[in-house]
Amino acid sequence: MPPDRNSSSSIATANSIASFFAVTLVYLGHQKWIQHRWRRKHQDISERGEALLTPTLPYIYDYLKCLQDHCDPYINPRGYIPLCVSENKLITELVGLRMMQIETATRAFSDSSVYCYNNSLGLPGPRESIAYFLAKHFMYPERKDMSFRDALNFIRPEHVAFGSGAASLVSNLALSLAEEGDAVLIPAPYYAAFDADLKIMAGCIAVPVHSTNPSIGPTPADLEYAATLAEAKGLRVRILLITNPNNPLGTIYPPELVKSAIEWARSRSMHTIVDELYALSVHDQNVVFESVIRTLNNDLRNDVHHIWALSKDFGASGFRIGTLYSKNQRLLSSIANLNIFSGVSQPMQFVLQDILKDDHFIYGFLKNSRHRIRYSYEMCIARLDEMVIPYVPAKAGIFVYADFSSLLPEQTFSGEARFSSLLLDAARIIMTPGQAQHDRKPGMFRICYAFVSPEVLEMALVRLDRIVGKIRRWHWDNLNAAELTDIL
Amino acid sequence: MPPDRNSSSSIATANSIASFFAVTLVYLGHQKWIQHRWRRKHQDISERGEALLTPTLPYIYDYLKCLQDHCDPYINPRGYIPLCVSENKLITELVGLRMMQIETATRAFSDSSVYCYNNSLGLPGPRESIAYFLAKHFMYPERKDMSFRDALNFIRPEHVAFGSGAASLVSNLALSLAEEGDAVLIPAPYYAAFDADLKIMAGCIAVPVHSTNPSIGPTPADLEYAATLAEAKGLRVRILLITNPNNPLGTIYPPELVKSAIEWARSRSMHTIVDELYALSVHDQNVVFESVIRTLNNDLRNDVHHIWALSKDFGASGFRIGTLYSKNQRLLSSIANLNIFSGVSQPMQFVLQDILKDDHFIYGFLKNSRHRIRYSYEMCIARLDEMVIPYVPAKAGIFVYADFSSLLPEQTFSGEARFSSLLLDAARIIMTPGQAQHDRKPGMFRICYAFVSPEVLEMALVRLDRIVGKIRRWHWDNLNAAELTDIL
Repeated sequence: MPPDRNSSSSIATANSIASFFAVTLVYLGHQKWIQHRWRRKHQDISERGEALLTPTLPYIYDYLKCLQDHCDPYINPRGYIPLCVSENKLITELVGLRMMQIETATRAFSDSSVYCYNNSLGLPGPRESIAYFLAKHFMYPERKDMSFRDALNFIRPEHVAFGSGAASLVSNLALSLAEEGDAVLIPAPYYAAFDADLKIMAGCIAVPVHSTNPSIGPTPADLEYAATLAEAKGLRVRILLITNPNNPLGTIYPPELVKSAIEWARSRSMHTIVDELYALSVHDQNVVFESVIRTLNNDLRNDVHHIWALSKDFGASGFRIGTLYSKNQRLLSSIANLNIFSGVSQPMQFVLQDILKDDHFIYGFLKNSRHRIRYSYEMCIARLDEMVIPYVPAKAGIFVYADFSSLLPEQTFSGEARFSSLLLDAARIIMTPGQAQHDRKPGMFRICYAFVSPEVLEMALVRLDRIVGKIRRWHWDNLNAAELTDIL
Repeated sequence: MPPDRNSSSSIATANSIASFFAVTLVYLGHQKWIQHRWRRKHQDISERGEALLTPTLPYIYDYLKCLQDHCDPYINPRGYIPLCVSENKLITELVGLRMMQIETATRAFSDSSVYCYNNSLGLPGPRESIAYFLAKHFMYPERKDMSFRDALNFIRPEHVAFGSGAASLVSNLALSLAEEGDAVLIPAPYYAAFDADLKIMAGCIAVPVHSTNPSIGPTPADLEYAATLAEAKGLRVRILLITNPNNPLGTIYPPELVKSAIEWARSRSMHTIVDELYALSVHDQNVVFESVIRTLNNDLRNDVHHIWALSKDFGASGFRIGTLYSKNQRLLSSIANLNIFSGVSQPMQFVLQDILKDDHFIYGFLKNSRHRIRYSYEMCIARLDEMVIPYVPAKAGIFVYADFSSLLPEQTFSGEARFSSLLLDAARIIMTPGQAQHDRKPGMFRICYAFVSPEVLEMALVRLDRIVGKIRRWHWDNLNAAELTDIL
């Protein structure tokens, strides 16, 4: 009967709806249980802790792979050769021998002031030493006989501070000068770790500034364009961060360019951080680097902040010692509180105090360092010339920025990644890829030639030459494993 | 005429309204201009930078005042005597002489691995050395002849890490284990700087746990009550932070108490940080301190994290070296990224590697250190007994927690502050006030007797005795300047 049919059908419908809901509820309950179990199991750190698990550099795992089986010309000639880390290993033994001088090494522990809490910006003596060093090597490099007293009149020790490496200073400056979510403009290509340095603690967003010619540096129009783009995305642009001499280009910005960039930033009430980490690694004898301290005639006001570190010019990134020079007293007070978490071990400050004042050592060391860098640089570019690989002629720094775009399987960043993989697998070489440095053009690589000895560099360049030859001969379509066995 | 009057009156009204608006507009414009000028002038740091200008300790300015004119028994006997800093200066020369041993001091710079980037948790050798030290002095202190190999079987070097002082480790643990705004429970009274350590970078909120008897430590009921109170305020309670031996009480929690607190935290899926910064400064020869590592039979799981540092037991807070022991691998990965900003200078790691393995030195030093602490402690309590000032009998640490409440002009924290001021002005003494340590009862003070030599401590106690006598004799109403001239 229709009513029965109807009723039975409606019962069936009701049943099926009920069982649908029941199943759904069981399913959702199960999902929630799984989720709960998963969360309980995985709640070993917080959500923001999770976010901190992301590697700070995209190529870090490849680098770690290199370290486990690295090349040694005698013991392990077929090992990996990392050319992706901007560290000067050509001078380690020069620095080491000076550090190991007994008076310096023991004096580090001989003063009772190194043991106890003190001003977290640095102990008085070591801060004087930084001021002296900056006055002598950054402000007036031509005045080699400048007295300690004169130097401290030019740069006041109360305006300088220590930080746990330049990374911590960049982070603490962003924490003190910008709000969370604010943008920091950086001329591109730039040092790959700036993204993480600005993001992790300070929550600031690095925004690349693209220029027509990055080697010359950003014009006010380039900066304005980048700022406008960032603002269109709702970002507040608070800081301009300039690296001069430039990493990864190895070029030096003309003083007028730096000045006009600062003037542009000032017109927008922005701060400028000038990172001069490679100031004393100028290897082209025909050029002179002019520090922003001199360009501005030491008139940094409240909005220009100068960073240097032992990491690059002294090849000692493991020391975690950076220096800040700023006339912004409130900024320095803020950094003092932040330095509770990132101060520099006081005995190390004492070691530095000794060394930075040791003119005899410093002048000899810097001269020697520049020669060694130049030697490796010239070795590197001679091979690049032979391979007809274009590069940005470098004047400073410990790297060269080369254009491998003609060798990519396609002109995209996935093409760049394929080329990187081939280099890693077949040639066991790793260079810093352009994408990680915010280059717009695929195929640009930073070669850190000073990270290895000249012998190992030579081996890397031979391997590079071979693989370039293979790609040119066989193209990517016909490159097979058999062709790639004799690279090492 | 009325209409005229009316019209003139309405014109007048219109005029006065217009001028009111004009004046208001000019006034508002002026205000805005002033505000703009003010902002421009003061916008030398960001808003969160502003917030960072707050001193991390409420009594820091008084302390800095002390430092500028501090007491010296021979040169400046009327100078200020700070007894508010928990630093052991009684042993500085013992540590210093060991650090200055030429092999140790120069070896710090002799290995090329100290110069370059490395695992930011610490170099392999130094991490092994921490593992050895923890196994030997925390886990099995009775096994004085434990071999290096055995020690590393108990505590794996991959589970230990360095941090730039305990402050940075506490901050980085909060960043990794909790979200911004989450609560961290701390048994009160507690180390005054924990508030800032948890707040500045991690944005976490320290919540005091009050117990019936703080010396015995918090029961699960005390913890639950504090957690419920925090939750009622909308806070999520994520971490329990225990300091054992306790600062400021100088007492040692029984192992069962620590165990039950951890079990309570586990029942709520919370993490427990156990700060054992004073573990090796137990000066009561009749008691043995048991580390949480032993209490838990080394089963820390993913949620118990152990902190120690050179700062207290080695009197070397200026070294900025803390150690973390945790079996939570993801936590350690997160800390590795955070340590980019707060790593420990690698040569210092090497120095530490040498010293922590030097059993002969360590055992001698620790014995000596305990004797010196005990000597000053007994000097201090003998005087307190004479003055009939109650105190918490201490077994460890480098301070004693005393009850000056009977001397306050009123039983409030402003009464405590008036007593502090009187001590500073008339007796030139500063002790850590209970309010800064989240005590509920006004008048409690931490006396850091190990921050000065026994001679200077004796001078401080004499001054204290005199001022206590004055207050008792004259009461606050009749205390006048004339009565207070002969304290120093």
